Amino acid sequence: MDPAEILSICQVKYAYFRLLDMKRFAELGELLTEDATTAYQSGELHHDGRDAVVAFLQESLGDPGIVTMHNGHHPEIELTGSDSATGRWYLEDRVIVPAHDFELHGTALYDDRYVKVGGRWKISHTGYERIYEEHLRYSSGEVRSIRAAGQTTTF
Amino acid sequence: MDPAEILSICQVKYAYFRLLDMKRFAELGELLTEDATTAYQSGELHHDGRDAVVAFLQESLGDPGIVTMHNGHHPEIELTGSDSATGRWYLEDRVIVPAHDFELHGTALYDDRYVKVGGRWKISHTGYERIYEEHLRYSSGEVRSIRAAGQTTTF
Amino acid sequence: MDPAEILSICQVKYAYFRLLDMKRFAELGELLTEDATTAYQSGELHHDGRDAVVAFLQESLGDPGIVTMHNGHHPEIELTGSDSATGRWYLEDRVIVPAHDFELHGTALYDDRYVKVGGRWKISHTGYERIYEEHLRYSSGEVRSIRAAGQTTTF
Repeated sequence: MDPAEILSICQVKYAYFRLLDMKRFAELGELLTEDATTAYQSGELHHDGRDAVVAFLQESLGDPGIVTMHNGHHPEIELTGSDSATGRWYLEDRVIVPAHDFELHGTALYDDRYVKVGGRWKISHTGYERIYEEHLRYSSGEVRSIRAAGQTTTF
Repeated sequence: MDPAEILSICQVKYAYFRLLDMKRFAELGELLTEDATTAYQSGELHHDGRDAVVAFLQESLGDPGIVTMHNGHHPEIELTGSDSATGRWYLEDRVIVPAHDFELHGTALYDDRYVKVGGRWKISHTGYERIYEEHLRYSSGEVRSIRAAGQTTTF
Repeated sequence: MDPAEILSICQVKYAYFRLLDMKRFAELGELLTEDATTAYQSGELHHDGRDAVVAFLQESLGDPGIVTMHNGHHPEIELTGSDSATGRWYLEDRVIVPAHDFELHGTALYDDRYVKVGGRWKISHTGYERIYEEHLRYSSGEVRSIRAAGQTTTF
Protein backbone atom coordinates (compact mmCIF):
# COMPACT_ATOMS: atom_id res chain seq x y z
CA MET A 1 0.00 0.00 0.00
CA ASP A 2 1.60 3.23 -1.16
CA PRO A 3 -0.82 6.06 -0.33
CA ALA A 4 0.81 8.62 -2.66
CA GLU A 5 0.42 6.29 -5.65
CA ILE A 6 -3.15 5.41 -4.73
CA LEU A 7 -4.21 9.05 -4.33
CA SER A 8 -2.47 9.90 -7.63
CA ILE A 9 -4.47 7.21 -9.42
CA CYS A 10 -7.68 8.47 -7.82
CA GLN A 11 -6.98 12.00 -9.05
CA VAL A 12 -6.65 10.72 -12.63
CA LYS A 13 -10.06 9.10 -12.39
CA TYR A 14 -11.54 12.24 -10.79
CA ALA A 15 -10.20 14.38 -13.64
CA TYR A 16 -11.69 11.84 -16.09
CA PHE A 17 -15.18 12.30 -14.63
CA ARG A 18 -14.83 16.08 -14.43
CA LEU A 19 -13.70 16.40 -18.05
CA LEU A 20 -16.37 13.92 -19.16
CA ASP A 21 -19.21 15.97 -17.66
CA MET A 22 -17.64 19.21 -18.94
CA LYS A 23 -17.45 17.62 -22.44
CA ARG A 24 -13.69 18.28 -22.65
CA PHE A 25 -13.06 14.98 -24.42
CA ALA A 26 -9.65 15.75 -25.96
CA GLU A 27 -8.23 16.59 -22.53
CA LEU A 28 -9.90 13.45 -21.16
CA GLY A 29 -8.00 11.50 -23.82
CA GLU A 30 -4.72 12.66 -22.28
CA LEU A 31 -5.62 10.63 -19.17
CA LEU A 32 -5.71 7.42 -21.23
CA THR A 33 -2.81 5.43 -22.66
CA GLU A 34 -2.66 5.54 -26.44
CA ASP A 35 -3.74 1.89 -26.60
CA ALA A 36 -6.41 2.17 -23.89
CA THR A 37 -9.45 -0.08 -24.15
CA THR A 38 -12.96 0.24 -22.77
CA ALA A 39 -15.85 -2.05 -21.91
CA TYR A 40 -18.63 0.38 -21.03
CA GLN A 41 -22.19 -0.65 -20.32
CA SER A 42 -21.48 -4.26 -19.27
CA GLY A 43 -19.17 -4.67 -22.27
CA GLU A 44 -21.78 -3.72 -24.91
CA LEU A 45 -19.72 -0.65 -25.80
CA HIS A 46 -16.03 -1.37 -26.29
CA HIS A 47 -13.29 0.65 -27.91
CA ASP A 48 -9.69 0.12 -28.88
CA GLY A 49 -7.28 3.01 -28.48
CA ARG A 50 -7.52 6.54 -27.13
CA ASP A 51 -8.70 8.02 -30.41
CA ALA A 52 -11.62 5.60 -30.64
CA VAL A 53 -12.66 6.36 -27.05
CA VAL A 54 -12.52 10.12 -27.54
CA ALA A 55 -14.42 9.88 -30.83
CA PHE A 56 -17.11 7.75 -29.20
CA LEU A 57 -17.56 10.16 -26.28
CA GLN A 58 -17.65 13.17 -28.61
CA GLU A 59 -20.25 11.49 -30.80
CA SER A 60 -22.49 10.18 -28.03
CA LEU A 61 -22.24 13.00 -25.46
CA GLY A 62 -20.86 16.00 -27.38
CA ASP A 63 -24.26 17.61 -27.96
CA PRO A 64 -24.54 20.50 -25.44
CA GLY A 65 -28.21 19.55 -25.00
CA ILE A 66 -27.17 16.33 -23.22
CA VAL A 67 -26.53 16.87 -19.51
CA THR A 68 -24.53 14.23 -17.65
CA MET A 69 -23.47 13.36 -14.12
CA HIS A 70 -20.83 10.69 -13.58
CA ASN A 71 -19.76 10.25 -9.96
CA GLY A 72 -17.18 7.62 -9.02
CA HIS A 73 -17.25 6.40 -5.44
CA HIS A 74 -15.52 3.78 -3.31
CA PRO A 75 -12.06 3.50 -4.92
CA GLU A 76 -10.63 0.03 -4.27
CA ILE A 77 -7.19 0.55 -5.83
CA GLU A 78 -4.57 -2.20 -5.75
CA LEU A 79 -0.98 -1.71 -6.87
CA THR A 80 0.04 -4.79 -8.86
CA GLY A 81 3.60 -3.58 -9.58
CA SER A 82 5.65 -0.39 -9.37
CA ASP A 83 3.94 0.94 -12.50
CA SER A 84 0.67 -0.96 -12.72
CA ALA A 85 -2.55 -1.06 -10.71
CA THR A 86 -6.15 -2.18 -10.79
CA GLY A 87 -9.14 -0.25 -9.54
CA ARG A 88 -12.74 -0.93 -8.64
CA TRP A 89 -15.16 2.00 -8.47
CA TYR A 90 -18.87 2.39 -7.77
CA LEU A 91 -20.47 4.65 -10.38
CA GLU A 92 -23.70 6.61 -10.12
CA ASP A 93 -24.63 8.27 -13.39
CA ARG A 94 -27.39 10.31 -14.96
CA VAL A 95 -27.79 11.18 -18.63
CA ILE A 96 -30.50 13.80 -19.17
CA VAL A 97 -31.79 14.79 -22.60
CA PRO A 98 -34.43 17.47 -21.98
CA ALA A 99 -35.27 17.79 -25.70
CA HIS A 100 -36.30 14.11 -25.77
CA ASP A 101 -37.84 14.22 -22.28
CA PHE A 102 -35.49 11.37 -21.40
CA GLU A 103 -33.33 10.47 -18.43
CA LEU A 104 -31.10 7.47 -17.77
CA HIS A 105 -30.14 6.92 -14.15
CA GLY A 106 -28.19 4.05 -12.71
CA THR A 107 -25.26 2.54 -10.91
CA ALA A 108 -22.42 0.27 -11.98
CA LEU A 109 -19.16 -1.28 -10.81
CA TYR A 110 -16.02 -0.28 -12.71
CA ASP A 111 -13.05 -2.59 -13.25
CA ASP A 112 -10.11 -0.47 -14.38
CA ARG A 113 -6.42 -0.96 -15.08
CA TYR A 114 -3.78 1.76 -14.75
CA VAL A 115 -0.15 2.04 -15.83
CA LYS A 116 2.52 4.61 -15.04
CA VAL A 117 3.94 6.13 -18.20
CA GLY A 118 6.74 8.71 -18.01
CA GLY A 119 6.03 9.24 -14.30
CA ARG A 120 2.26 9.78 -14.75
CA TRP A 121 -0.54 7.32 -14.06
CA LYS A 122 -2.86 6.72 -17.02
CA ILE A 123 -5.95 4.62 -17.57
CA SER A 124 -5.10 1.60 -19.77
CA HIS A 125 -8.52 -0.06 -19.46
CA THR A 126 -11.88 1.01 -18.11
CA GLY A 127 -15.20 -0.79 -18.10
CA TYR A 128 -18.24 -1.34 -15.95
CA GLU A 129 -21.02 -3.78 -15.20
CA ARG A 130 -24.42 -2.28 -14.41
CA ILE A 131 -26.06 -2.89 -11.04
CA TYR A 132 -29.25 -1.18 -12.15
CA GLU A 133 -30.36 1.15 -14.91
CA GLU A 134 -33.56 3.18 -14.96
CA HIS A 135 -35.12 4.98 -17.90
CA LEU A 136 -37.38 7.86 -16.95
CA ARG A 137 -39.73 10.34 -18.57
CA TYR A 138 -37.62 13.27 -17.49
CA SER A 139 -40.16 16.06 -16.99
CA SER A 140 -42.64 13.98 -14.98
CA GLY A 141 -40.17 11.84 -13.04
CA GLU A 142 -42.05 8.71 -14.07
CA VAL A 143 -39.97 5.53 -14.33
CA ARG A 144 -40.57 3.75 -17.62
CA SER A 145 -38.30 0.77 -16.88
CA ILE A 146 -35.69 -0.54 -14.50
CA ARG A 147 -33.18 -3.25 -15.35
CA ALA A 148 -31.35 -5.06 -12.55
CA ALA A 149 -30.04 -8.57 -11.95
CA GLY A 150 -30.75 -9.47 -15.58
CA GLN A 151 -34.44 -8.59 -15.32
CA THR A 152 -36.33 -5.62 -16.79
CA THR A 153 -39.49 -4.26 -15.18
CA THR A 154 -41.53 -1.83 -17.26
CA PHE A 155 -44.28 0.52 -16.06
CA MET B 1 -2.42 10.42 10.76
CA ASP B 2 -1.18 7.32 8.96
CA PRO B 3 -2.46 7.51 5.37
CA ALA B 4 -1.87 3.82 4.60
CA GLU B 5 -4.00 2.74 7.58
CA ILE B 6 -6.72 5.24 6.73
CA LEU B 7 -6.94 4.17 3.10
CA SER B 8 -6.97 0.51 4.19
CA ILE B 9 -9.93 1.16 6.47
CA CYS B 10 -11.73 3.01 3.67
CA GLN B 11 -11.26 0.05 1.34
CA VAL B 12 -12.91 -2.28 3.89
CA LYS B 13 -15.95 0.00 4.00
CA TYR B 14 -15.99 0.27 0.18
CA ALA B 15 -15.95 -3.53 -0.12
CA TYR B 16 -18.80 -3.66 2.43
CA PHE B 17 -21.01 -1.41 0.29
CA ARG B 18 -20.09 -3.25 -2.92
CA LEU B 19 -20.86 -6.68 -1.45
CA LEU B 20 -24.05 -5.34 0.14
CA ASP B 21 -25.47 -4.10 -3.17
CA MET B 22 -24.31 -7.29 -4.93
CA LYS B 23 -26.09 -9.34 -2.20
CA ARG B 24 -22.88 -11.24 -1.39
CA PHE B 25 -23.66 -11.24 2.33
CA ALA B 26 -21.38 -14.11 3.43
CA GLU B 27 -18.34 -12.34 1.96
CA LEU B 28 -19.54 -9.10 3.55
CA GLY B 29 -19.49 -10.94 6.87
CA GLU B 30 -15.75 -11.54 6.46
CA LEU B 31 -15.26 -7.76 6.74
CA LEU B 32 -16.79 -7.78 10.24
CA THR B 33 -15.28 -9.00 13.48
CA GLU B 34 -17.01 -12.08 14.86
CA ASP B 35 -18.51 -10.02 17.67
CA ALA B 36 -19.42 -7.03 15.48
CA THR B 37 -22.47 -5.00 16.48
CA THR B 38 -24.77 -2.75 14.47
CA ALA B 39 -27.14 0.12 15.12
CA TYR B 40 -28.75 0.67 11.72
CA GLN B 41 -31.60 3.10 11.11
CA SER B 42 -30.94 5.40 14.08
CA GLY B 43 -30.52 2.36 16.34
CA GLU B 44 -33.92 0.82 15.59
CA LEU B 45 -32.19 -2.17 14.00
CA HIS B 46 -29.34 -3.58 16.09
CA HIS B 47 -27.53 -6.87 15.91
CA ASP B 48 -24.98 -8.75 17.97
CA GLY B 49 -22.32 -10.72 16.17
CA ARG B 50 -21.38 -11.29 12.55
CA ASP B 51 -23.82 -14.17 12.08
CA ALA B 52 -26.77 -12.08 13.23
CA VAL B 53 -25.79 -9.23 10.89
CA VAL B 54 -25.39 -11.51 7.88
CA ALA B 55 -28.69 -13.28 8.63
CA PHE B 56 -30.49 -9.93 8.93
CA LEU B 57 -29.10 -8.65 5.62
CA GLN B 58 -29.93 -11.92 3.85
CA GLU B 59 -33.46 -11.86 5.20
CA SER B 60 -34.20 -8.19 4.53
CA LEU B 61 -32.33 -7.64 1.23
CA GLY B 62 -31.69 -11.15 -0.16
CA ASP B 63 -34.68 -11.11 -2.52
CA PRO B 64 -33.28 -10.46 -6.04
CA GLY B 65 -36.33 -8.26 -6.67
CA ILE B 66 -35.00 -5.68 -4.21
CA VAL B 67 -32.55 -3.25 -5.82
CA THR B 68 -30.27 -1.24 -3.53
CA MET B 69 -27.74 1.56 -3.72
CA HIS B 70 -25.56 2.31 -0.70
CA ASN B 71 -22.92 4.97 -1.28
CA GLY B 72 -20.59 6.03 1.54
CA HIS B 73 -19.05 9.46 1.23
CA HIS B 74 -16.86 11.78 3.31
CA PRO B 75 -14.73 9.36 5.37
CA GLU B 76 -13.65 11.04 8.60
CA ILE B 77 -11.40 8.27 9.94
CA GLU B 78 -9.48 8.69 13.17
CA LEU B 79 -6.87 6.24 14.43
CA THR B 80 -7.41 5.79 18.16
CA GLY B 81 -4.54 3.31 18.64
CA SER B 82 -2.24 1.13 16.54
CA ASP B 83 -5.07 -1.34 15.95
CA SER B 84 -8.26 0.66 16.52
CA ALA B 85 -10.03 3.48 14.74
CA THR B 86 -13.33 5.30 14.48
CA GLY B 87 -15.02 6.47 11.31
CA ARG B 88 -17.77 8.85 10.31
CA TRP B 89 -19.36 8.47 6.88
CA TYR B 90 -22.13 10.21 4.99
CA LEU B 91 -24.50 7.65 3.45
CA GLU B 92 -26.87 8.10 0.53
CA ASP B 93 -29.04 5.07 -0.01
CA ARG B 94 -31.92 3.86 -2.15
CA VAL B 95 -33.96 0.70 -1.70
CA ILE B 96 -36.21 0.01 -4.69
CA VAL B 97 -38.89 -2.69 -4.73
CA PRO B 98 -40.48 -2.52 -8.19
CA ALA B 99 -42.99 -5.28 -7.37
CA HIS B 100 -44.40 -3.16 -4.54
CA ASP B 101 -43.99 0.11 -6.47
CA PHE B 102 -41.91 1.33 -3.52
CA GLU B 103 -38.73 3.28 -3.07
CA LEU B 104 -36.90 4.43 0.03
CA HIS B 105 -34.35 7.20 -0.49
CA GLY B 106 -32.34 9.00 2.14
CA THR B 107 -29.15 10.06 3.80
CA ALA B 108 -27.55 9.27 7.13
CA LEU B 109 -24.39 9.72 9.17
CA TYR B 110 -22.48 6.57 10.12
CA ASP B 111 -20.52 6.15 13.35
CA ASP B 112 -18.27 3.13 12.96
CA ARG B 113 -15.50 1.44 14.92
CA TYR B 114 -12.70 -0.61 13.39
CA VAL B 115 -10.08 -2.97 14.81
CA LYS B 116 -7.05 -4.61 13.24
CA VAL B 117 -7.18 -8.39 13.60
CA GLY B 118 -4.32 -10.53 12.30
CA GLY B 119 -3.04 -7.62 10.21
CA ARG B 120 -6.41 -6.82 8.61
CA TRP B 121 -8.83 -4.02 9.47
CA LYS B 122 -12.35 -5.19 10.29
CA ILE B 123 -15.57 -3.43 11.22
CA SER B 124 -16.35 -4.00 14.91
CA HIS B 125 -19.35 -1.67 15.04
CA THR B 126 -21.43 0.13 12.46
CA GLY B 127 -24.52 2.26 12.84
CA TYR B 128 -26.14 5.36 11.46
CA GLU B 129 -28.50 8.18 12.31
CA ARG B 130 -30.82 9.36 9.55
CA ILE B 131 -30.65 12.92 8.24
CA TYR B 132 -33.70 12.41 6.07
CA GLU B 133 -35.70 9.50 4.68
CA GLU B 134 -38.19 9.68 1.84
CA HIS B 135 -40.74 7.07 0.82
CA LEU B 136 -41.83 7.24 -2.80
CA ARG B 137 -44.32 5.64 -5.15
CA TYR B 138 -41.57 4.26 -7.35
CA SER B 139 -43.11 4.25 -10.82
CA SER B 140 -44.54 7.77 -10.64
CA GLY B 141 -41.75 9.42 -8.65
CA GLU B 142 -44.30 10.85 -6.22
CA VAL B 143 -43.07 11.42 -2.68
CA ARG B 144 -45.44 9.92 -0.12
CA SER B 145 -43.54 11.11 2.95
CA ILE B 146 -40.31 12.65 4.14
CA ARG B 147 -38.94 12.36 7.66
CA ALA B 148 -36.23 14.76 8.83
CA ALA B 149 -35.29 16.48 12.09
CA GLY B 150 -37.82 14.32 13.96
CA GLN B 151 -40.74 15.49 11.82
CA THR B 152 -42.67 13.59 9.13
CA THR B 153 -44.42 15.37 6.27
CA THR B 154 -46.86 13.31 4.22
CA PHE B 155 -48.29 14.15 0.80
CA MET C 1 2.24 14.69 -3.05
CA ASP C 2 2.00 14.33 0.73
CA PRO C 3 -0.86 11.91 1.44
CA ALA C 4 -1.24 12.88 5.10
CA GLU C 5 -1.74 16.54 4.20
CA ILE C 6 -4.15 15.69 1.41
CA LEU C 7 -6.28 13.43 3.61
CA SER C 8 -6.27 16.09 6.34
CA ILE C 9 -7.60 18.67 3.91
CA CYS C 10 -10.29 16.24 2.73
CA GLN C 11 -11.42 15.67 6.30
CA VAL C 12 -11.91 19.43 6.78
CA LYS C 13 -14.16 19.55 3.72
CA TYR C 14 -16.04 16.43 4.88
CA ALA C 15 -16.67 18.03 8.28
CA TYR C 16 -17.86 21.18 6.46
CA PHE C 17 -20.52 19.21 4.56
CA ARG C 18 -21.57 17.23 7.64
CA LEU C 19 -21.97 20.35 9.78
CA LEU C 20 -23.74 22.16 6.92
CA ASP C 21 -26.42 19.47 6.58
CA MET C 22 -26.74 19.20 10.39
CA LYS C 23 -27.19 23.01 10.52
CA ARG C 24 -24.29 23.39 12.97
CA PHE C 25 -23.13 26.61 11.35
CA ALA C 26 -21.02 28.04 14.21
CA GLU C 27 -18.91 24.86 14.28
CA LEU C 28 -18.70 24.98 10.49
CA GLY C 29 -17.25 28.49 10.87
CA GLU C 30 -14.34 27.05 12.85
CA LEU C 31 -13.26 25.24 9.65
CA LEU C 32 -12.85 28.58 7.83
CA THR C 33 -10.13 31.17 8.22
CA GLU C 34 -11.36 34.40 9.78
CA ASP C 35 -10.98 36.17 6.44
CA ALA C 36 -12.43 33.34 4.35
CA THR C 37 -14.28 34.26 1.17
CA THR C 38 -16.94 32.42 -0.83
CA ALA C 39 -18.26 32.43 -4.37
CA TYR C 40 -21.26 30.10 -4.16
CA GLN C 41 -23.67 29.51 -7.01
CA SER C 42 -21.33 30.46 -9.86
CA GLY C 43 -20.26 33.56 -7.94
CA GLU C 44 -23.77 35.01 -7.51
CA LEU C 45 -23.46 34.56 -3.75
CA HIS C 46 -20.20 35.82 -2.31
CA HIS C 47 -19.17 36.62 1.24
CA ASP C 48 -16.22 38.21 2.96
CA GLY C 49 -15.10 36.77 6.27
CA ARG C 50 -16.14 33.84 8.41
CA ASP C 51 -18.85 35.79 10.22
CA ALA C 52 -20.54 36.78 6.96
CA VAL C 53 -20.46 33.17 5.72
CA VAL C 54 -21.91 31.77 8.94
CA ALA C 55 -24.62 34.46 9.02
CA PHE C 56 -25.56 33.73 5.41
CA LEU C 57 -25.83 29.97 6.01
CA GLN C 58 -27.84 30.50 9.19
CA GLU C 59 -30.23 32.85 7.42
CA SER C 60 -30.67 30.81 4.24
CA LEU C 61 -30.63 27.24 5.63
CA GLY C 62 -31.23 27.60 9.38
CA ASP C 63 -34.97 26.85 9.18
CA PRO C 64 -35.42 23.22 10.40
CA GLY C 65 -38.05 22.81 7.67
CA ILE C 66 -35.34 23.01 5.01
CA VAL C 67 -33.69 19.63 4.36
CA THR C 68 -30.33 19.59 2.58
CA MET C 69 -27.86 17.12 1.12
CA HIS C 70 -24.40 18.32 0.13
CA ASN C 71 -22.05 15.58 -1.05
CA GLY C 72 -18.53 16.39 -2.17
CA HIS C 73 -16.88 13.89 -4.50
CA HIS C 74 -13.66 13.58 -6.51
CA PRO C 75 -11.16 15.58 -4.43
CA GLU C 76 -8.40 16.91 -6.68
CA ILE C 77 -6.18 18.48 -4.01
CA GLU C 78 -2.88 20.09 -4.90
CA LEU C 79 -0.35 21.32 -2.33
CA THR C 80 0.96 24.68 -3.52
CA GLY C 81 3.31 25.20 -0.54
CA SER C 82 3.97 23.75 2.88
CA ASP C 83 0.91 25.54 4.26
CA SER C 84 -1.28 26.20 1.22
CA ALA C 85 -3.29 24.09 -1.17
CA THR C 86 -6.01 24.22 -3.80
CA GLY C 87 -8.87 21.79 -4.21
CA ARG C 88 -11.38 20.87 -6.86
CA TRP C 89 -14.51 18.95 -5.83
CA TYR C 90 -17.59 17.65 -7.60
CA LEU C 91 -20.72 18.57 -5.65
CA GLU C 92 -24.14 16.94 -5.79
CA ASP C 93 -26.68 18.82 -3.73
CA ARG C 94 -30.37 18.81 -2.90
CA VAL C 95 -32.33 21.48 -1.06
CA ILE C 96 -35.83 20.30 -0.14
CA VAL C 97 -38.52 22.60 1.27
CA PRO C 98 -41.57 20.38 1.85
CA ALA C 99 -43.70 23.33 3.06
CA HIS C 100 -43.24 25.03 -0.33
CA ASP C 101 -43.38 21.77 -2.28
CA PHE C 102 -39.98 22.72 -3.70
CA GLU C 103 -36.75 20.90 -4.44
CA LEU C 104 -33.48 22.12 -5.94
CA HIS C 105 -31.18 19.38 -7.23
CA GLY C 106 -27.92 19.82 -9.07
CA THR C 107 -24.21 19.41 -9.48
CA ALA C 108 -21.30 21.82 -9.47
CA LEU C 109 -17.52 22.02 -9.49
CA TYR C 110 -15.85 23.60 -6.47
CA ASP C 111 -12.62 25.61 -6.61
CA ASP C 112 -11.30 25.94 -3.08
CA ARG C 113 -8.19 27.29 -1.40
CA TYR C 114 -6.82 26.03 1.92
CA VAL C 115 -4.18 27.32 4.33
CA LYS C 116 -2.58 25.74 7.39
CA VAL C 117 -3.03 27.92 10.46
CA GLY C 118 -1.52 26.85 13.79
CA GLY C 119 -1.04 23.31 12.50
CA ARG C 120 -4.63 22.92 11.22
CA TRP C 121 -5.88 23.15 7.65
CA LYS C 122 -8.67 25.68 7.13
CA ILE C 123 -10.73 26.76 4.15
CA SER C 124 -9.66 30.25 3.02
CA HIS C 125 -11.85 30.34 -0.09
CA THR C 126 -14.67 28.19 -1.41
CA GLY C 127 -16.83 28.61 -4.48
CA TYR C 128 -18.48 26.62 -7.20
CA GLU C 129 -19.71 26.78 -10.77
CA ARG C 130 -22.91 24.91 -11.57
CA ILE C 131 -22.92 22.07 -14.09
CA TYR C 132 -26.69 21.75 -13.91
CA GLU C 133 -29.47 22.83 -11.60
CA GLU C 134 -33.00 21.45 -11.57
CA HIS C 135 -36.05 22.89 -9.84
CA LEU C 136 -38.74 20.34 -9.03
CA ARG C 137 -42.25 20.21 -7.67
CA TYR C 138 -41.16 18.13 -4.70
CA SER C 139 -44.21 15.99 -3.95
CA SER C 140 -44.87 14.94 -7.55
CA GLY C 141 -41.26 14.64 -8.72
CA GLU C 142 -42.07 16.83 -11.73
CA VAL C 143 -39.18 18.87 -13.11
CA ARG C 144 -40.16 22.51 -13.61
CA SER C 145 -36.86 23.63 -15.09
CA ILE C 146 -33.29 22.58 -15.72
CA ARG C 147 -30.41 24.99 -16.30
CA ALA C 148 -27.17 23.72 -17.86
CA ALA C 149 -24.52 25.10 -20.22
CA GLY C 150 -26.06 28.57 -19.93
CA GLN C 151 -29.47 27.42 -21.14
CA THR C 152 -32.71 26.96 -19.19
CA THR C 153 -35.38 24.48 -20.28
CA THR C 154 -38.78 24.80 -18.61
CA PHE C 155 -41.60 22.24 -18.57
